[in-house]
Amino acid sequence: MSMLKGNAVVGQSGGPTAAINATLSGVIRGALAHSDVIPTIYGMRNGVDGLLREDLINLSEIFNEKKLTDLENTPAAALGSCRRKLPKPGENDAVYEKLLEIFKKNDIRYFFYIGGNDSMDTVAKLSAYTAENDYEMRIIGVPKTIDNDLVVTDHTPGFGSAAKYIAVTIQEIIRDCAVYTTPAVTVVEIMGRDAGWLTAASAIGRAVNGISPDLVYLPERAFDMDKFFCDVKACLDRHPNVVIAVSEGVRFADGRYVGEGTQSGVADAFGHKYLSGTGKALELAVKEKFGCKVRSVELNICQRAAAHLQSKTDIDESVRVGKGAVDAAVSGITREMMTIDRVSDAPYRAEIGHSDVSKIANLIKKVNDEFINAEGNNITDAGINYLLPLIAGETAPEWKDGLPVYCIL
Amino acid sequence: MSMLKGNAVVGQSGGPTAAINATLSGVIRGALAHSDVIPTIYGMRNGVDGLLREDLINLSEIFNEKKLTDLENTPAAALGSCRRKLPKPGENDAVYEKLLEIFKKNDIRYFFYIGGNDSMDTVAKLSAYTAENDYEMRIIGVPKTIDNDLVVTDHTPGFGSAAKYIAVTIQEIIRDCAVYTTPAVTVVEIMGRDAGWLTAASAIGRAVNGISPDLVYLPERAFDMDKFFCDVKACLDRHPNVVIAVSEGVRFADGRYVGEGTQSGVADAFGHKYLSGTGKALELAVKEKFGCKVRSVELNICQRAAAHLQSKTDIDESVRVGKGAVDAAVSGITREMMTIDRVSDAPYRAEIGHSDVSKIANLIKKVNDEFINAEGNNITDAGINYLLPLIAGETAPEWKDGLPVYCIL
Repeated sequence: MSMLKGNAVVGQSGGPTAAINATLSGVIRGALAHSDVIPTIYGMRNGVDGLLREDLINLSEIFNEKKLTDLENTPAAALGSCRRKLPKPGENDAVYEKLLEIFKKNDIRYFFYIGGNDSMDTVAKLSAYTAENDYEMRIIGVPKTIDNDLVVTDHTPGFGSAAKYIAVTIQEIIRDCAVYTTPAVTVVEIMGRDAGWLTAASAIGRAVNGISPDLVYLPERAFDMDKFFCDVKACLDRHPNVVIAVSEGVRFADGRYVGEGTQSGVADAFGHKYLSGTGKALELAVKEKFGCKVRSVELNICQRAAAHLQSKTDIDESVRVGKGAVDAAVSGITREMMTIDRVSDAPYRAEIGHSDVSKIANLIKKVNDEFINAEGNNITDAGINYLLPLIAGETAPEWKDGLPVYCIL
Repeated sequence: MSMLKGNAVVGQSGGPTAAINATLSGVIRGALAHSDVIPTIYGMRNGVDGLLREDLINLSEIFNEKKLTDLENTPAAALGSCRRKLPKPGENDAVYEKLLEIFKKNDIRYFFYIGGNDSMDTVAKLSAYTAENDYEMRIIGVPKTIDNDLVVTDHTPGFGSAAKYIAVTIQEIIRDCAVYTTPAVTVVEIMGRDAGWLTAASAIGRAVNGISPDLVYLPERAFDMDKFFCDVKACLDRHPNVVIAVSEGVRFADGRYVGEGTQSGVADAFGHKYLSGTGKALELAVKEKFGCKVRSVELNICQRAAAHLQSKTDIDESVRVGKGAVDAAVSGITREMMTIDRVSDAPYRAEIGHSDVSKIANLIKKVNDEFINAEGNNITDAGINYLLPLIAGETAPEWKDGLPVYCIL
């Protein structure tokens, strides 16, 4: 493969995570290391939206080691994000023509897109278009999603930090719930519409210190309210402080979301109807059934934004995968998504690889069957063994006046 | 004052915090340092509830330096808690007689109660009873509450850590919200039924790095929905990502809680009525008024349980106040609550003092007028100057396999 000299552009897309800026840092580090081939690396603001407006920021100029380290500890997408899905090729070529014009004008030959499923779709479509139009480019997708639901890769950058936040926070919630002797049920709702990876992470403590939720429900198993009541009753018979972790995406066997129950017929004083969520639905159901004290906690966006509680393993890998993307592109790879390939469990070791993006885009990786117990209400040891290395280690962000120091672009 | 030799008992009461175990550690450290006067220090499980069952644990025997340090980094009440309020003297003397019997049986002469308002009430009543019955005791209240609403003391142990959690978390939420360009409003509901101290802490970032909520509403000011809409509109005119911090306890001028609006008439599919909260009420109101994307986030019990994000200043003071309680008691003080007295702002310096518990129990300290801006929708620089030193510094809990190490009693 011939050497391709030209500038690079990097963008971030989809929902933010606590590690997506570490991957951005990795891409910048990679480009700076290959400055003989890539004279300048630009950042596009708000993903492809900004690129189409030619809203580019010269990242080569402004970065030094201190700023890159700060960037790795900064939550959310420093370049901004977007949710644009590119049109199907042939449907609206104007968008592609505009992008090609901007690439040519800025001599951009390298395109790195950090994102989830939709971003891999962008990588696939843009790769096809530039190839068909004889404009040589190296286009690489760099995965990120807290949901861990991309196929081929062992796990996704961003997942480990969100999993660590959930694992630590649920320990704190369980200790908080343990102080009273009155029977009480606490339902913790965790992100994950289609896959239960994040909710599974709530169980990790069982293997470390024995502190873990009594019950764990994932969207991979149909939710049965009667079975749920039996599970809760069995727990309440054993001890007074029952803690339950549940994915926002759990559904009944007929496909309805458990959280939908609270939507139909619910209206507030202003006449609005709204979905109050899966945790709230189960809170109300338990209150009606058992009459005991019940509350629900929704971890909400904190679980994807908590950069103060990053997993060091996740951040290190997020940087590596970003650098690896540039190395791969410079060596001739294109139309691929970077992957993390687990080489061994104990000691944990992973290598950076890549795979055809068309085998990845628009597919969802569910939690493995062997990671869910037979009753469908907890995680197996095999599942915890998979998760445990991903939350290992803590990062050391800089603090000033009691607050973490961020890199704002 | 004569030397009083005898055993000690310590209990924790009320809602847990991320620092109440640091105070417990301080009391144990103090007792161990005075072992010539206090041969044994007992812990009562679940506060006075456990004491009445004589459910005591010998703390002198089981603690070493490593265990005390772990205890200081462990969230919630390691001894358990209770919500019992002692009867008025004369109403039910059986409770007091039982307590006195247990004190005599175990040669207990020192009583330390770590808690909030109700606990100070317990200290006052028990002091009166034992004095009247000629049983010499030293009875000291040691404050803790994330709400910071106790009078006389400059601030309460536990507040600084909760304030730090809120200050850091709101920064992460603001960065998360900043990634898209579509107009959106995010309402963050923060604990504080009667006083807005915790919500005020959301504004701290303004003085450090400029990242703070656009609007901050405390229960100290009557909430006006029309004024609120004007405030929000002005923010949306300036930038697309509006973040609002609001105390759960904000009320309209007529005294109704803002969160009550969502209660009346709201019922779920099972026919339950429920209070969905202040944040949800404002989310729905903004959605109806502006039609833009709106969401609400409730920080919930995480804000009082997050030991992984303690303020070092808070933990150091929490230990000091616990040790100081034993020092004071041994020197002859009784029927007092320990206080933290601020000596200077810059550099911040505080001393441990004590004050008559009857001047403290059952009173609420509101946020100072000069800490709230004239519009009643943000915090003044004076307010931030008060708050800033209280979140300073980070603790270094021990981690094992990606999770913090706790001390479980």
